[in-house]
Amino acid sequence: MSVPYELLAELSVATPSKIVLLVMDGLGGLPRPETGLTELATASKTHLNALARDSVTGLSQPIVPGITPGSGPAHLALFGYDPIACNVGRGVLSALGIGFPLGATDLAARINFATVDDQGRVTDRRAGRISTETNRELVGLLRQIRIPGVDIFLETESMHRAVVVFRAPNLRADISDTDPQHTGVLPHRVIAHHPEAELTAAIVNQFIGEAGRILADQSPANFVLLRGFATYPKLPSLSDLYKLRPAAVATYPMYRGLGRLVGMDVLETGETFEDEVRTIVENWDRYDFFFVHYKYTDTTGEDGNFEAKVAAIEEVDRSLPLLLSLKPNVICVTGDHSTPSRLREHSWNPVPFLLRGAYEIPDDVEEFTEKACQKGTLGRFPAQQAMLLMMGNARKLEKFGA
Amino acid sequence: MSVPYELLAELSVATPSKIVLLVMDGLGGLPRPETGLTELATASKTHLNALARDSVTGLSQPIVPGITPGSGPAHLALFGYDPIACNVGRGVLSALGIGFPLGATDLAARINFATVDDQGRVTDRRAGRISTETNRELVGLLRQIRIPGVDIFLETESMHRAVVVFRAPNLRADISDTDPQHTGVLPHRVIAHHPEAELTAAIVNQFIGEAGRILADQSPANFVLLRGFATYPKLPSLSDLYKLRPAAVATYPMYRGLGRLVGMDVLETGETFEDEVRTIVENWDRYDFFFVHYKYTDTTGEDGNFEAKVAAIEEVDRSLPLLLSLKPNVICVTGDHSTPSRLREHSWNPVPFLLRGAYEIPDDVEEFTEKACQKGTLGRFPAQQAMLLMMGNARKLEKFGA
Repeated sequence: MSVPYELLAELSVATPSKIVLLVMDGLGGLPRPETGLTELATASKTHLNALARDSVTGLSQPIVPGITPGSGPAHLALFGYDPIACNVGRGVLSALGIGFPLGATDLAARINFATVDDQGRVTDRRAGRISTETNRELVGLLRQIRIPGVDIFLETESMHRAVVVFRAPNLRADISDTDPQHTGVLPHRVIAHHPEAELTAAIVNQFIGEAGRILADQSPANFVLLRGFATYPKLPSLSDLYKLRPAAVATYPMYRGLGRLVGMDVLETGETFEDEVRTIVENWDRYDFFFVHYKYTDTTGEDGNFEAKVAAIEEVDRSLPLLLSLKPNVICVTGDHSTPSRLREHSWNPVPFLLRGAYEIPDDVEEFTEKACQKGTLGRFPAQQAMLLMMGNARKLEKFGA
Repeated sequence: MSVPYELLAELSVATPSKIVLLVMDGLGGLPRPETGLTELATASKTHLNALARDSVTGLSQPIVPGITPGSGPAHLALFGYDPIACNVGRGVLSALGIGFPLGATDLAARINFATVDDQGRVTDRRAGRISTETNRELVGLLRQIRIPGVDIFLETESMHRAVVVFRAPNLRADISDTDPQHTGVLPHRVIAHHPEAELTAAIVNQFIGEAGRILADQSPANFVLLRGFATYPKLPSLSDLYKLRPAAVATYPMYRGLGRLVGMDVLETGETFEDEVRTIVENWDRYDFFFVHYKYTDTTGEDGNFEAKVAAIEEVDRSLPLLLSLKPNVICVTGDHSTPSRLREHSWNPVPFLLRGAYEIPDDVEEFTEKACQKGTLGRFPAQQAMLLMMGNARKLEKFGA
């Protein structure tokens, strides 16, 4: 059963109570065969375990069992949106991540600088992961491209990754990617999936042709691959839906962008979890909802580095007391998805979840692990329900119906 | 996944087997800090515990986690309806509660007698909670109001509460309430939310103007506030959907009205749970589905009276053997929602649930409490599923698909 936006807006009330949503990216893991323990079960985490004992726990299912989410849908689900209905394209996520002020009619895409051979076949889809500095130089060159009637904005993301935004009337996102996903083949041409997208496809193909000419003599980045064409999604904000004054604390651009997408103020912060917590401490009086995003549980998982992921979890545990000293009315700790270091990528596995609020009856779960949370009172539940559970516990929802 | 009405009607079969659904209103609670025990865990309840040992148990979620239901949606969910799609307005619930024979085109609203100052500003939204006797006198005065082309029916509910029903062609419910929800301000005028509701808004505003003139010299109730405008919802009955012959046994008007809304025969009964059980005993042969509603677990919770709620639970436990002596094929005991005495109001917390039937494998839950039911085999499940579970266990549903 999903709750219509209108009903949420009607039921929600602004109150002084405060909610903290701590997302440890890619938190869930899989057991290491030698020990039978996951990264989370291996980590020394006194404070997370103590918090779990005071909480209701369970396993949060980002999308549905079996479906592995990207960061966009996984976060939107935790923010209470239907992650399938509200899917946000890669291009928009990239643009948001670098703080680009996307307009309602803009079309954004992710660029990968790539290497092609003299036949035009892709030999490296990431151009040897060029430096961000080189990327900036190449983006500078591409900015000379002019297409009549179209404003083109180019920005470096990092390494081989950049963003392009096309601004013109009637651009559409229903066009195909050019990244062939394999080497040894030609990049795809952009194809319109709808007759009204033909103009957009022509504009993008013209841009790619010009880019190829400009980059022809560069090495190793002598071509561009474009994917994730997307226009700005029209989502109601967390203020519209929940009357929250929400803030995002995140070190990585993508997550700042996701916060911005749902109407959060994005706070400047540092690189460590302690930095992030200090940012919350400094801004505690200004907001009633804090989304704090911790990235390194995911990056270490993607690196396949079990020990580093354990250490990342322990970094969070060390600064948890400072966060709890703020006495949030509701605190929720979970991940957006699992990133088992054994898999070196995101997975569909459900994610350990805890919520501490004054109006829940804690279950008997004694530690914060995948296995222990299997027995939590929340069971395996859709991540999308987390937001309502936080809102209810913060007493920010009025009674539905007479 | 919800089951379409047509499919239910197709699968259901009339059989002699009998179902009892015992709803202990507001059953769920929260622990008292001194003992860590809820009202239900504190109560001495030999028979409920014994029944739980023979049952499958779990926690019933009335709407979705975090959303606190009113009595209307909470009961409709237990009767198997989608509580969001089938939301029933306050006006209709009030009219049903006093037994008013609502017609398909009637528009009902809840009246609160209120006090306004000489500037027309609300000083008491409940007119000092006048006696029901005074209410009857004022309703008598208001019955002189005439609006051409409109039949107006007025009935006392209790204290400051009354019901008004407007009968005319093309009345609509999409108009705003007049209760400003605060004192020190003027009541709202009724606003149409749709152009076709303008006529309705005008009729209601005229009624309110007349009422103000008639009550001007009364004290303290010199004005009326109207809210919860609603027309009669078109719900298929339990006979249509499940081929049941259902009866409602309830001491409070609202719940008799809810039973009537879904096509139950409403049986006359007394004030105590024993009275209600005796009513079932007397009518056992006439029906195959008994909805028995026990109110005092909710009223005591709303009074914040922990001990009284404990006593109310014990009252039910005492008469449970008499109910069980009827040997219902299926018995289900739960609440429509939680009303923790600590909160003094409804809450979103899931509700202990048990179902005993001959075709279930009892779980290991040894007592009927919030905490024990956390470990029940049904987990946390939508209340809306309870009806199908009762029907299946009563062998009243045929196989779906070949």
